[in-house]
Amino acid sequence: MGIQDDAVAAAARHIETNGRDILNEFLRFVRMPNVSADLEDVRAVADAIAEQLLRRGVSARLLERGGAAPLVTGRIDAGPDRPTIGIYAHYDGQPVDQEGWLTDPFDPVVKSGEAVVHDPTDGGAIDPDWRIYARSTSDDKAPIQALMSALDALADASIEPAVNIVLLFEGQEEAGSQDLAAYLEANADWFGADMWLICDGPVHQSRTPQIIFGVRGIAQLDLTVIGPVRGLHSGHYGNWVPNPAWALVQLLATMRSSDGSVVIDGFYDDVVPPTEAELVAISAIPEYEKDLLAEFGIHTPEGDGESMVERMYRPSLNIRGLDAGPVGDRAANVLPASATVSIDIRLPPGHDPGFMIDKVVGHIERQGFAVFESTPSIEERRSHERVAVVTRDPHYAGMRVPIAGPVGEAILGAARAASESGEVVAMPTLGGSVPIIHFDRVLDVPTVIVPMANHDNNQHDANENIRIGNLWYGIRLMAALMTLQKTTDLRPQTSDHRS
Amino acid sequence: MGIQDDAVAAAARHIETNGRDILNEFLRFVRMPNVSADLEDVRAVADAIAEQLLRRGVSARLLERGGAAPLVTGRIDAGPDRPTIGIYAHYDGQPVDQEGWLTDPFDPVVKSGEAVVHDPTDGGAIDPDWRIYARSTSDDKAPIQALMSALDALADASIEPAVNIVLLFEGQEEAGSQDLAAYLEANADWFGADMWLICDGPVHQSRTPQIIFGVRGIAQLDLTVIGPVRGLHSGHYGNWVPNPAWALVQLLATMRSSDGSVVIDGFYDDVVPPTEAELVAISAIPEYEKDLLAEFGIHTPEGDGESMVERMYRPSLNIRGLDAGPVGDRAANVLPASATVSIDIRLPPGHDPGFMIDKVVGHIERQGFAVFESTPSIEERRSHERVAVVTRDPHYAGMRVPIAGPVGEAILGAARAASESGEVVAMPTLGGSVPIIHFDRVLDVPTVIVPMANHDNNQHDANENIRIGNLWYGIRLMAALMTLQKTTDLRPQTSDHRS
Repeated sequence: MGIQDDAVAAAARHIETNGRDILNEFLRFVRMPNVSADLEDVRAVADAIAEQLLRRGVSARLLERGGAAPLVTGRIDAGPDRPTIGIYAHYDGQPVDQEGWLTDPFDPVVKSGEAVVHDPTDGGAIDPDWRIYARSTSDDKAPIQALMSALDALADASIEPAVNIVLLFEGQEEAGSQDLAAYLEANADWFGADMWLICDGPVHQSRTPQIIFGVRGIAQLDLTVIGPVRGLHSGHYGNWVPNPAWALVQLLATMRSSDGSVVIDGFYDDVVPPTEAELVAISAIPEYEKDLLAEFGIHTPEGDGESMVERMYRPSLNIRGLDAGPVGDRAANVLPASATVSIDIRLPPGHDPGFMIDKVVGHIERQGFAVFESTPSIEERRSHERVAVVTRDPHYAGMRVPIAGPVGEAILGAARAASESGEVVAMPTLGGSVPIIHFDRVLDVPTVIVPMANHDNNQHDANENIRIGNLWYGIRLMAALMTLQKTTDLRPQTSDHRS
Repeated sequence: MGIQDDAVAAAARHIETNGRDILNEFLRFVRMPNVSADLEDVRAVADAIAEQLLRRGVSARLLERGGAAPLVTGRIDAGPDRPTIGIYAHYDGQPVDQEGWLTDPFDPVVKSGEAVVHDPTDGGAIDPDWRIYARSTSDDKAPIQALMSALDALADASIEPAVNIVLLFEGQEEAGSQDLAAYLEANADWFGADMWLICDGPVHQSRTPQIIFGVRGIAQLDLTVIGPVRGLHSGHYGNWVPNPAWALVQLLATMRSSDGSVVIDGFYDDVVPPTEAELVAISAIPEYEKDLLAEFGIHTPEGDGESMVERMYRPSLNIRGLDAGPVGDRAANVLPASATVSIDIRLPPGHDPGFMIDKVVGHIERQGFAVFESTPSIEERRSHERVAVVTRDPHYAGMRVPIAGPVGEAILGAARAASESGEVVAMPTLGGSVPIIHFDRVLDVPTVIVPMANHDNNQHDANENIRIGNLWYGIRLMAALMTLQKTTDLRPQTSDHRS
């Protein structure tokens, strides 16, 4: 047994012995309101976290920036020869005005299935399948509690951390993280690390622990086909004045083949196929697609048999909105003045957001459209048979950390040590886009997502919850991360960590 | 000079001599509020009309049905050997809550261009280019005033009507004419006639008088392509779960070729090309398309050089609404749960509304869609790769009266006699759909539209107005209609009057 296994065993013993105290501490923590918009509540949570860190001997402080919620930060030092890992979580939470809350969002209730467990910390056994219902139990106070309890477990067992740790607990993630990049830029030395771990989000649908090595980037555009200057009577002018809704659907139809592949010139040029290690990881992901299709009511997914993860290696061209006047009872007999589609493009690493929008615009122009950036004048409309307006919104590129590299091996080792089954899902990429670009780009550090929560946690919705077994996993995982192994190759850090 | 020319000359003299009295009477008439929803106001207008008819010796009465606005009806008898014409107008008006009214909608103001004419009935000359601004001046009180003044003109000149006339003034046209068919059915004998004349709408854009011999029918359908049971995260599931908005645009694109023609099997099967007489009439229509294109900001109309009227001989397939979630600032990164298009089909005579919807649905099915009439169950969704819901709304068929037939010749003769230039536009069909089906279908009578108002009358909008010259034309026209010529072939009436 190495030090990491010792640390995980110490965490397991600590849970066994002190489970009710951990639970009580966590219940107190989630009882503190933390809706992002309520800055006083959020500050109180930040103060409480700093106090908890200081009580455990961690040098903690709050970073302030204008009127924004403070960052809670702290360092745990293992020695200058040791690698440094950054641990990120956020202590603010979503609003609680959703319909359907069965209990008070800030008065946590423990349930066994539908039944309330009235005295969960009475000394009896705590069932890992119980769940705690309250806002931010999963998203994202659990990792903070897990860190605190892991510190206690290691202290009890007199195990020293094997790596330096820099902590960053953010208070405005659910409000858009608008100050995070500036906070990082202003404190780049302090937040320097060999890797950053984003402790947020859910583990795999199969309840197997999961490490996520990449995200897709995102670019957005709105495309409006311009018709007559005002909506016209569809009887008087229909099939004489060209209808921009028809022009839009016919233009869009030229962008995709019937099998769902995008036929815009060069759209897939920069696709990097999965590496050997990623293919192995993909084939080891537990089957869950059939359940998803059944849940969504879908007959056949796109992609001619490719797995969902493999599909995420390609950029997507998604219609997220389409509007050319109301339908159903609200429809009017008009020939609409314009028709608009809103598109989001999800980008694997290597696809530049602006360049991908250029490809789409180039395609539109090749279909004979004069493309404007804002509504053209009536003379400009009359000068072109086909007129469109495109609004560009390139957000950020995607990123991916190699599964088989030193970061991947170290993190997967920790998660494997903490996993009850010894199994871990190595997910090469999320289909979604998470602004961990701040760590990847501002700090130029390999960044992976290290989730703890159950996938069915009702994140962002009413009745958010965490399965207690997942909190326990989080504590073991934090113990394993503090004693991270296989870190020899981590330093010196290289800047070409992106795959 | 025949009796019709005498009658028109008598009307002209009456206008010359009594113009200010006519104007004063009309100003009093349009001062009466008549918004369809205000039933008491509407009833007061009906009573006033009946009183005006009785004062002129016309047997008038109100027909009542439930709580609906009454029909004002009346008969003028010329003798059992004479043909009977029906004259329709409506005395209710649009709401007046539009932005932009420069003067009180029910306090009429006479203007010369932008300038108010402060005392238009002081005895000086009345300029036919002056306009009267008030709700319902054009739509549709002017024809009622024109009838009253024409009765006065003929009485002054001791000219007897040459045809029997049955009057129908409706009080709920702007609210949808929901009781009109029932009123007609219940009084079919009373309203029996050899032709019905719908006195509503504007004359030609060139200010030339116009008679309209047909309208297109209309059918509507909503088509919804079904996607996942709820909107999904476009990053996590985009390009794996099929997007119904893509499926919808690709389906729609199969319905039309790039030149605007519909390629749905059999869509144009029942198109009847213009007759010789209609082609002559079309070629005589004053040029106005260039001005319309300039006004609308359009480079090239559809139809490969066909005139706008010729286009109206074909059924249209118009996208009137398109919705797959919001665009622009309100767009969300979702893969939408469904995508809907609302379509209206304008129908020349001979195209059955239900059958045309069948053709569209057949096309959808041939593209591989399972078509449902309401939202399918999750099992039904999962059983078909492509799922759509179609809601059918067949309204009514189109109609067209032959320009060269006895009705056409008689009406065109009257309009020519009343026209200052001697010119009349014989418009074979409107592109739009007017529910004159009630006359055509319930009474089985050839029905034509006989408008009087200027085309730029701001109908349905703020600052509705009528050009006084158009009111004068209306009076001459009513005198000509009461002394209708070339009616020998009108009786006996045949039921195959439709072209």
